[in-house]
Amino acid sequence: MTNDTNVTWHEHQVSRSLRESMKGHKGCVIWFTGLSGSGKSTVANTLDHKLHQMGVHSAVLDGDNVRHALNAGPGMLRGAHGDDFAERFGLGFTAMDREENIRRIGAVAHLFSQAGIIALTAFISPYRQDRDRVRRTMDAGEFIEIFVDTPLDVCETRDPKGLYKKARAGEIKNFTGIDDPYEAPSAPELVLQASEKTPGVLADEVIHYLTTQGIIGATA
Amino acid sequence: MTNDTNVTWHEHQVSRSLRESMKGHKGCVIWFTGLSGSGKSTVANTLDHKLHQMGVHSAVLDGDNVRHALNAGPGMLRGAHGDDFAERFGLGFTAMDREENIRRIGAVAHLFSQAGIIALTAFISPYRQDRDRVRRTMDAGEFIEIFVDTPLDVCETRDPKGLYKKARAGEIKNFTGIDDPYEAPSAPELVLQASEKTPGVLADEVIHYLTTQGIIGATA
Repeated sequence: MTNDTNVTWHEHQVSRSLRESMKGHKGCVIWFTGLSGSGKSTVANTLDHKLHQMGVHSAVLDGDNVRHALNAGPGMLRGAHGDDFAERFGLGFTAMDREENIRRIGAVAHLFSQAGIIALTAFISPYRQDRDRVRRTMDAGEFIEIFVDTPLDVCETRDPKGLYKKARAGEIKNFTGIDDPYEAPSAPELVLQASEKTPGVLADEVIHYLTTQGIIGATA
Repeated sequence: MTNDTNVTWHEHQVSRSLRESMKGHKGCVIWFTGLSGSGKSTVANTLDHKLHQMGVHSAVLDGDNVRHALNAGPGMLRGAHGDDFAERFGLGFTAMDREENIRRIGAVAHLFSQAGIIALTAFISPYRQDRDRVRRTMDAGEFIEIFVDTPLDVCETRDPKGLYKKARAGEIKNFTGIDDPYEAPSAPELVLQASEKTPGVLADEVIHYLTTQGIIGATA
């Protein structure tokens, strides 16, 4: 290559603020936490839908799209990558594996936020320390922790996947709320009383919060 | 919770096509591959800049934003997560660790694509099998492999970070192109002659390709 071509090889990085001005809103991470069956995923998807209708760019990260690829267990990896690889990199449900699960989700949500998108994460994320570590990787105001506060007995009555029943029968071990602790946030940005209101009302509460924080425009 | 609240708990998922119609373009993954110093990151960032100016939503994944968090090495993880965690989950540069590095990047790029964004990845990704595995996780036409075809001697002359010099001196082991192989794509969607053209011209070649494929509008 010639020298005069060489001088043109500099970076043209798009700044975060430029990206945000194009989209008309800021990027951030809305981190839903709560028991299995509390309504995290339903509220996140309802919120995603409402934001979309408002022209706000959002994306949902939940078990459906993360546990099958990015944070797959050994069984999912074995076919394409072999046994040794699957054992080395597959994520299970030990405390350390759960920590890594949350760490990666936080890192990906951060990438979305940096790209100007409102990332909605819906994971039990039971340990306060793991959530706080994710918070510390982000800018002030970027990590919005929302406690989906549905009592255990309500979650257990809903039991959409029959998991509580299996946990009570001892067929699933280390199940959050049964034989593994759930640590509620000590200072969440928002608490949703998800046993008393519809997903639409709860999503509106989040939208109201985002508006008051200047993350989305009042007329977005 | 009452039964009449319960019936409203259904999902409102935003379909991919709805997301794409809002943004006015499709999501996809543009996977740049090539030697260190070939110009992957510069072309990706230049392309990102041009797409931004066209109102197209894109995001760059490269070593700068991936190796410090999502795919951090043990050293980066140790402080926040402890020694055992860092050893268990930190990524090094063995063949298996490189495979996992690429696997995760592919999974994240796919999440971006599913959210309607054009994800631009800029990693050496030297092994054909690893790139092909990523391709197989995606829909037809979603994974666009671009070979940044800069000859080794040009890359070595550029050597922006002095890595080739260190590799030649034996201070870095398993360096792609020196003592570790680079496997060029056998059927890439596009080949860029990056030693002969400016990043702006190369980015325009990619934009032309995206237009012919109907991923972005001709007037986008």
